[in-house]
Order: sequence, then C-alpha cells, then structure tokens
Amino acid sequence: MENTFIKKEKVRFQHVDYAGIVFYPRFLEMLNNIVEDFYEEALDMPFKNIHKTGGIPTVDLKVQFKKAARLGDELTKYFWVKKLGSSSMNCGFKFEHEDGSICLEGEVSLVRVDFNADRNDIKASPFPDEMRAKLERYVIPDMRF
Amino acid sequence: MENTFIKKEKVRFQHVDYAGIVFYPRFLEMLNNIVEDFYEEALDMPFKNIHKTGGIPTVDLKVQFKKAARLGDELTKYFWVKKLGSSSMNCGFKFEHEDGSICLEGEVSLVRVDFNADRNDIKASPFPDEMRAKLERYVIPDMRF
Amino acid sequence: MENTFIKKEKVRFQHVDYAGIVFYPRFLEMLNNIVEDFYEEALDMPFKNIHKTGGIPTVDLKVQFKKAARLGDELTKYFWVKKLGSSSMNCGFKFEHEDGSICLEGEVSLVRVDFNADRNDIKASPFPDEMRAKLERYVIPDMRF
Amino acid sequence: MENTFIKKEKVRFQHVDYAGIVFYPRFLEMLNNIVEDFYEEALDMPFKNIHKTGGIPTVDLKVQFKKAARLGDELTKYFWVKKLGSSSMNCGFKFEHEDGSICLEGEVSLVRVDFNADRNDIKASPFPDEMRAKLERYVIPDMRF
Repeated sequence: MENTFIKKEKVRFQHVDYAGIVFYPRFLEMLNNIVEDFYEEALDMPFKNIHKTGGIPTVDLKVQFKKAARLGDELTKYFWVKKLGSSSMNCGFKFEHEDGSICLEGEVSLVRVDFNADRNDIKASPFPDEMRAKLERYVIPDMRF
Repeated sequence: MENTFIKKEKVRFQHVDYAGIVFYPRFLEMLNNIVEDFYEEALDMPFKNIHKTGGIPTVDLKVQFKKAARLGDELTKYFWVKKLGSSSMNCGFKFEHEDGSICLEGEVSLVRVDFNADRNDIKASPFPDEMRAKLERYVIPDMRF
Repeated sequence: MENTFIKKEKVRFQHVDYAGIVFYPRFLEMLNNIVEDFYEEALDMPFKNIHKTGGIPTVDLKVQFKKAARLGDELTKYFWVKKLGSSSMNCGFKFEHEDGSICLEGEVSLVRVDFNADRNDIKASPFPDEMRAKLERYVIPDMRF
Repeated sequence: MENTFIKKEKVRFQHVDYAGIVFYPRFLEMLNNIVEDFYEEALDMPFKNIHKTGGIPTVDLKVQFKKAARLGDELTKYFWVKKLGSSSMNCGFKFEHEDGSICLEGEVSLVRVDFNADRNDIKASPFPDEMRAKLERYVIPDMRF
C-alpha cells in the first residue's frame, strides 16, 4: 500500500496471555512502537528529542480485533495519516498476518503538545511547516480502515 | 450511577511514562482489571475458572482519552453492559478523576468463547441462563458514554 | 513477622504467561509496588513527590523463585530493611502463598538520588534524619532471606 | 566475546519511567527476549513449540544495574552458559551501552520442565543430547560476570 509506513513485529512471549494469544494491551504497545518508528524514521523526530519538552498524547482510539495473533507470529504493521489538523492528526493502522489476513485495524488521533518547565501544563502546539510537509506524504484520506 | 459496576484503581509508578502521565496501553490493563473483577464479583465466574477451557476475547474497542492521569491519582472506574447478544456483549466504561472530571470513556465488545483441547480452535459460546440473568442487572442501554 | 512491611497482591490476568503462571518480570512490578507502598505509607514520602526532583533507582537485585504463582492466587508480600547506608539501603523481600509456602524471596539495593533540572545528572543524596528514623523501624539485619 | 549469543535491543518509550530511564522490570523483559532468541536461533527450539507441553521457568536471578539506559539508547545484549546441569543451566548475561560501558550484568538459572495435559503438574525434564550439544557451544564457565 503506497503512502503507508510499514514495520514488522514478531509476537513474543511477553505479549501472550494464558490462552497463548496476544493480550490486547500489548497490541497497543505494538501500535505505540510503530508511531515511535514513524516519528523517528518518517518525520526525523525521534521520541528522545520530543519528550524533553513535549509529547504526542493519544486522545482517541478505535480498534477492531479481527483475528488472534499467537506466539511466534510475524505481524506486518501499516500506519498512515487519514486527516491532518493544525496540531493533531487522525491516523489509520492495520496489522496483518503472514497470510495477508487482517489481525486488527483501527484509527488513532494524536495531538502535538508542549509542556511547561515542570511538565504540569500542557498545550497543543501546531505542526511546523517542515513536519507538515513530511506528514503530507503519508496522507491517504479515503482509505477504508 | 445505578446498575454500573464500580472499582477504584490508583495510578502507580509502573503505569506512567516519561511525561509522568499514564501510558495509554496501561489504561487498557486497568480496563482489563475491571472486566476481571466484574466476572469474579458480579458474575461469580473468576477468570481462573474460565481460562482453562475458554476465554472472553475483546473484539472491538473505542476509547476517548479526555484528561491525563498522573502518578498517585485515584481513578474510579465504571463498567456496565450496553447491549447483550447471545454470546457477546457491548459494554460501556468510564474512568473518573477524584474531582469528578472524566479521565477516559469508551466501549468494548467482548465475546464468550470455548477452546478445544489444544487451544487452537476457538468458537463462540452462548451465555448460560444463569450468567445472562446476572448480566441483565448491569444493562444500561441508553446511557451516554 | 515483626518489623516487616506487609501488603497483599492478587495474581491477575495481566501477570500470567502462556503457562498460566506469573511471568517473572511481572513479579518485579509487584516488588516495585510494595516499595512504592512502603515509601508512601511507612515513610510518608509518596512517589509522586519524590519523582519530580529525584528517584530511588534499583542497583542490585537477587531473587529466588521458589514456587510458581497462578491466576487468582493471593500473595502476601513482605518487605524490610537489611542494611541502612548513608544514601542507600539493602532490603529483603519475600512473597508467600496462602498456605504459607514461599513463592519467592530475595534482596534489593535501592539508592536515594537527586536529579538536576533537566534530569540528566543524577547524584546520590543522603537520607534526611526524619526519613532515617522511620527506616530504622524496619531494620531486621539478621533475618534469613 | 567468543561463545556468547548477542542481540541488540533499543530502549523504547514503553520501557522508560517517569525519570526517562528504563524501569527495571522492563530490563527483565529484554532479558527474556534474548533467552527467547537464544532458544529459537541457537538451539533451534522456538518458544512456540516449547510452550505447548513445557516451559523453562526462571528459578534464580541476580542482576547488578550499573548505568541507567535512556529512551533511544541502543543496548547490546550478551548471553552465555556458565554451568550446564542435567535439566537446568546457569547463564550469564550483560547489557552494554554503545560506548562499551556496562548497563547491567547478572546471572539467571533456567530449568527445563514438562507439563502434564492440564498444565497443573510440572516436572524437570533432562536436556536431550542434541540440545545439550548445542548448549555446550555457549559454555564459558569462568567468565567474570
């Protein structure tokens, strides 16, 4: 899929539950991992630089879990931008199994924020032009999720 | 709120991220905790009994994160049934701060399943009558979430 | 056991692995929880106050895992001070099953540190007298662990 | 270091705490990851095959945390066998920073076990000859840890 950011992640022992399938909060860690990789690799903004003075809190999340993932499964994760606001973006994501079947799919809204010095005050911060230009390469507005 | 199942959970060191606020996959662990408590206390079906021969996979999740939670915050978690199917239920949830402001709210769909002996085959399993009677006490179909 | 700080923690779904027993890194989260409770309840120094300007990194850890814990098990956790230094302490801990059998036991060394403003520089910080007085109540130097 | 099994792992957002350094139970997840990789790549026994009928519980763990790891740090993990028993092994491990400084080092004892059908009964199971032959390639008895 053109314009999507793609990463693989293997299901490890730490991800699976008593039933031998991924415990769903661990899927959200995997989702956070691809956001982290997207910021570092696609936007050239590694989290270690961002998180001293700001962050990108998740404000909205929708996930449909379609097919369980098991220990040792290799998942392919897709991430793209559905809608770009001034300081927030709504993003689509999909995790696929090796046979191409969908493991899960959903959408997540992220906001760019700055902290004050003692990290108590948080305010939305518009995307700088250079970042916006990079983000626009990943926009797929009408892709079904 | 009448008909809701209620539990408190404190934000611990293990839940918070670099920004000192709850990392959102940890909120989903807290959500799983109240589902676990609901099964044990409201339905008299502790997870330790369920998970030998079956489970209750999460198939759909929607969350709106409204206000960040910080280390030491005491959250009040509410859980109720929005719609009861033959072997699945759509449930509402809300986490509140001590001042009554909403931390997060959402809905989650859970399916009752049985495994075969080697846990590879999973099939939906209707709620038994006794369990359904207990679940009906927690139904609030038109509550805004 | 006199002079020990005691807390209970139940084995939850999020703690157990594919084998239905606690995944050992989750035991260390449970250990961190009792350290967090000890600071808040025994020392009157809640983590939310400490972690703005300092911390208590773990520098040494020894654990013997004696008997697996399963989903639903209620563990009793014991924590005490074995040796008190100027800014560090070596502490003992033990988790027991409901039948009194030992789940795990070990020792952990914690150091009190202060950060500089940007949290890059860390230096050991001596226990204030009031804190030392409280810590001394929990010293059991010769208890076998 | 000859005879050691080596893997890299990057410090991610999910690993770090309020102080911006790795929360120590996450280091143990990283340790479990290298054991998982060692079984799959060095012993040709992927965890997904092992964990249907048995496991390798950790019975003893010692770790010295030498130098904090921060968000974005690339750690090099070393793992080797110190002593090989009939069904257990004592292993050494070390995590290094990019500048060669030691992040942590320690030793861990793992036992090979079989479960009975309902996973309630666990008994030690000797290493088969082929597995023992592979393990012997990684034995470094007198390496200082």
